[in-house]
Amino acid sequence: MGRYVIGVDFGTLSGRAVLCDAATGEVLGQEAENYRNGVITGALPCGTALPDTFALADPADYEAVLENTIARLTARKLVPAEEIIGIGLDVTCSTFIPMDKSGVPLAKDPAFSGNPQAWMKMWKHHHAEKQAEKLTVLMNEREESFRTRCGGIINAEWMLPKLLEICEEAPEVWNAVENFEEAGDMLVRHLTGNTVRSQVMTGYKMLEDPADGTPDRAFLEAACPGFGSAYDKLKGKRLLPGASAGGLLPEVAARIGLPAGIPVAAANIDAHVAYPALGITEPGAALMILGTSCCLILASEEKASVPGIFGAVKDGVLPGCIGYEAGQSAVGDLFEWFEKNGVPEYIGNAAKEAGVPVLQYLTGLAAELKPGASGLLALDWWNGNRSVLSDVDLSGMILGMTLKTKPEEIFRALIESVAFGMREILDTFEASGVPVRSLYACGGISKKNRLLLRIYADVLNREIRVGESDQCSALGSAIFAAVAAGEESGGYRDLRAAASAMGHTEPEAVQPDPAAVAVYEQLFKEYRILHDYFGRGTNDVMKRLSAIREKN
Amino acid sequence: MGRYVIGVDFGTLSGRAVLCDAATGEVLGQEAENYRNGVITGALPCGTALPDTFALADPADYEAVLENTIARLTARKLVPAEEIIGIGLDVTCSTFIPMDKSGVPLAKDPAFSGNPQAWMKMWKHHHAEKQAEKLTVLMNEREESFRTRCGGIINAEWMLPKLLEICEEAPEVWNAVENFEEAGDMLVRHLTGNTVRSQVMTGYKMLEDPADGTPDRAFLEAACPGFGSAYDKLKGKRLLPGASAGGLLPEVAARIGLPAGIPVAAANIDAHVAYPALGITEPGAALMILGTSCCLILASEEKASVPGIFGAVKDGVLPGCIGYEAGQSAVGDLFEWFEKNGVPEYIGNAAKEAGVPVLQYLTGLAAELKPGASGLLALDWWNGNRSVLSDVDLSGMILGMTLKTKPEEIFRALIESVAFGMREILDTFEASGVPVRSLYACGGISKKNRLLLRIYADVLNREIRVGESDQCSALGSAIFAAVAAGEESGGYRDLRAAASAMGHTEPEAVQPDPAAVAVYEQLFKEYRILHDYFGRGTNDVMKRLSAIREKN
Repeated sequence: MGRYVIGVDFGTLSGRAVLCDAATGEVLGQEAENYRNGVITGALPCGTALPDTFALADPADYEAVLENTIARLTARKLVPAEEIIGIGLDVTCSTFIPMDKSGVPLAKDPAFSGNPQAWMKMWKHHHAEKQAEKLTVLMNEREESFRTRCGGIINAEWMLPKLLEICEEAPEVWNAVENFEEAGDMLVRHLTGNTVRSQVMTGYKMLEDPADGTPDRAFLEAACPGFGSAYDKLKGKRLLPGASAGGLLPEVAARIGLPAGIPVAAANIDAHVAYPALGITEPGAALMILGTSCCLILASEEKASVPGIFGAVKDGVLPGCIGYEAGQSAVGDLFEWFEKNGVPEYIGNAAKEAGVPVLQYLTGLAAELKPGASGLLALDWWNGNRSVLSDVDLSGMILGMTLKTKPEEIFRALIESVAFGMREILDTFEASGVPVRSLYACGGISKKNRLLLRIYADVLNREIRVGESDQCSALGSAIFAAVAAGEESGGYRDLRAAASAMGHTEPEAVQPDPAAVAVYEQLFKEYRILHDYFGRGTNDVMKRLSAIREKN
Repeated sequence: MGRYVIGVDFGTLSGRAVLCDAATGEVLGQEAENYRNGVITGALPCGTALPDTFALADPADYEAVLENTIARLTARKLVPAEEIIGIGLDVTCSTFIPMDKSGVPLAKDPAFSGNPQAWMKMWKHHHAEKQAEKLTVLMNEREESFRTRCGGIINAEWMLPKLLEICEEAPEVWNAVENFEEAGDMLVRHLTGNTVRSQVMTGYKMLEDPADGTPDRAFLEAACPGFGSAYDKLKGKRLLPGASAGGLLPEVAARIGLPAGIPVAAANIDAHVAYPALGITEPGAALMILGTSCCLILASEEKASVPGIFGAVKDGVLPGCIGYEAGQSAVGDLFEWFEKNGVPEYIGNAAKEAGVPVLQYLTGLAAELKPGASGLLALDWWNGNRSVLSDVDLSGMILGMTLKTKPEEIFRALIESVAFGMREILDTFEASGVPVRSLYACGGISKKNRLLLRIYADVLNREIRVGESDQCSALGSAIFAAVAAGEESGGYRDLRAAASAMGHTEPEAVQPDPAAVAVYEQLFKEYRILHDYFGRGTNDVMKRLSAIREKN
């Protein structure tokens, strides 16, 4: 008799469910579906205009994708339904819904449906920039203990500044909300009927840490009178990854073709769940999740204050370790920008003739170039800098062009710039006392663009092991499902055991080339000088240009 | 009875002759022709390979274009041939031919025809970089008086370093040469039989100045033993612009349909001759000749040492004035680079649909943008910096890109960068005590791209008067022909009189827009900071990248 688990990964535009063999991690089937309303920008469905910075969503879409993908997967009868022993899920974060006293989204109430602040906010909702800055200043002025866990900077994408945004700008919504529920927790409640809370989500996005210090009422009131009640509006017992949030409700089980009562794992963050999907169990391993942006996850036994990191949560990634998160704001997005805006017609025509996509053709040309041979150097800040400068007002730069410069040279310089950015991050971890012992990669681009991995390996002078699955997040959620199910049900006693059995990397690691390493060592010195010159206040031209742009 | 003059302008790839009314400057007809062998790069016709830095030509092509274009023009019988009273010509400079004792190009001698150093060298031959640096160091060490006339830097495009190149690298050629003849002087000899020398050419390209100090034998010998004889190999009486070099030889006159004996004006430099074609007679007027690169000509009563200028010659542009030359290495070339390498397919398609050339379509989009609205800033050094940094190892930079940046924004930033570069030049003149009282423009781009002129006007906060003719150089040479002819023959007593009558600008000047001026004032401050940071040694990253490129 087999044992199987289901993992569901909720991204920005779509969700996908996978069915995995709990013994091996083999993915037996998957089903994906887009959210009906996608990301809501520009205007609400009722017509109310939204500021540019708003990014909203409809929670019903997420519930529909949850049920539809699992139902389609079980309908294929790939395995006997009774051999499925658990469900896990991960969602972008902080993506949350203001709920009323009955656990219904406030936006369903006709009194609030036209109020954008009552709607579900996506992680990429960027309207709380002002609040993030205010909280950052306050936190540092007051020398709050939690400031060391976020690199000294509170990011506008987190829940804390987004809550302050509501408290300041829509007190009527603030007062009417009973519970600000993460989408992940809402989906767990949908499956189990239980109001619980992902401790990883509150840890990274609310800076909550019972042992190490959570923003207290005095701090919150100092930010805004009335904001002191913030944590009262975060209901639910905190659960660590792999903990069971409860059993699957019979009525839901019937609709989606699963046994009633099987455990549902606590929700987790989409990038974080990938860690076990590569079989990582050792502290000191850094995992780059390479997609439109890049998220870096690093579990370490060392507790340190690392400048410019995105967050640090005890047990957040690997039990017994501090789970550090850092990131780069534009990776795939940067290459896509270049494909759309910087690739000339003759390259497009050559790609057509060769019968390959433009970016693949361009990557082929760039792969032929030697490190240093273009004379170009770029700063990878097309979408600001998340780590280690944590500054959204920074912008991109490219330098070294001559009349002979070719598009593939520019493209390679952009790839190199992203790798240099990652080196800043890893160097910062090590300089702060958090050793980086091994390096892993997963995510769409790790599969599609091998040149990127080669350049990362050469710039970082490290071997890179690549996740075998092209759905590492969904697989990771399935692994947490197997942990929630427990050993007695055919799952695992803990995360390390599950990850060892179910997580896999490709057989061959990407190895650095010593000749390339030597050249990139020289180029990185130049990158660092410019990184600090433009990024650390010597010349704030990027910020001044951004201010001039806003006015013109 | 009418009076007419002929002007012939020899560019890099072709020559063109115009027939003008000596009373009004009206161009009655023109004929153009490409040089048969164009610019010789890669290999000599005999197959001998050339270094990348070599740019040679065949002097016979120039003589053919001279005769063919004038013959075709007179064959059209637009005016009675006997009413044509003079010929003038201008050539790129320093473009010169090693001649033997009989005045025949050394490369015609079978003993030398396979030796690249025996060939005619184009202005853009860039092999004498090493020699230019050596002479620069030596000149400054020895505090030579002429160093103030070239901004302290000797440029590889001049004759002096190119002669040193021959002396050092091909002593057999050096010893066999009787006369290094500028192409302009060779063409004058072809028409008149007289060996004379354009004083403007020796002034700018050999730093010759009898009154103010010429590189002497000791200086030359210090550069290379044997080089002391350099000035002995520059035969011919020096003639100022507008002086007659002699009468047209009867046998040539017969072939090209002109009266024998009419005066031929001393040769002049292609950019410089445009000055009178705009009717400029006042000191303090700066003229931008906008083509693939930009040449700035400024005649002033003030004698000053201006850092980074390309040359300063007494009476070189306007009698009684110092003729200053400065320039930018890439203007049209930069836009062409962008058109080929940076314009995406969708813009190309939109241009096709609109039925206009890509660059024109892109210019239309860029013209819609407001100053400062893109948040971009560029350094215009795609082909190095000629003035005021005079550094070929500098390269281009662009900064401020976000994921929303559009190609037309980049294109506009490139145009703006060129205008900022010009502002550096004009500001440097003024800071050195050479006032810039008025501004003029001519050249292909001044006619094709009005946005460029608008941006120049806004960045420089100056009115710009634009040359009426689209052949200002050929018209300028015709004006010097009228001066050489003299008042008694129906020409003019001096250059000012000729320029006033024959030179014209468009009726409407391009006016700066005060709102744009204010924004560009802010942006220029940022440009200057980066200009000095990357260009004046604070961060020599561009040079280091260039060195790394050479090695990889």
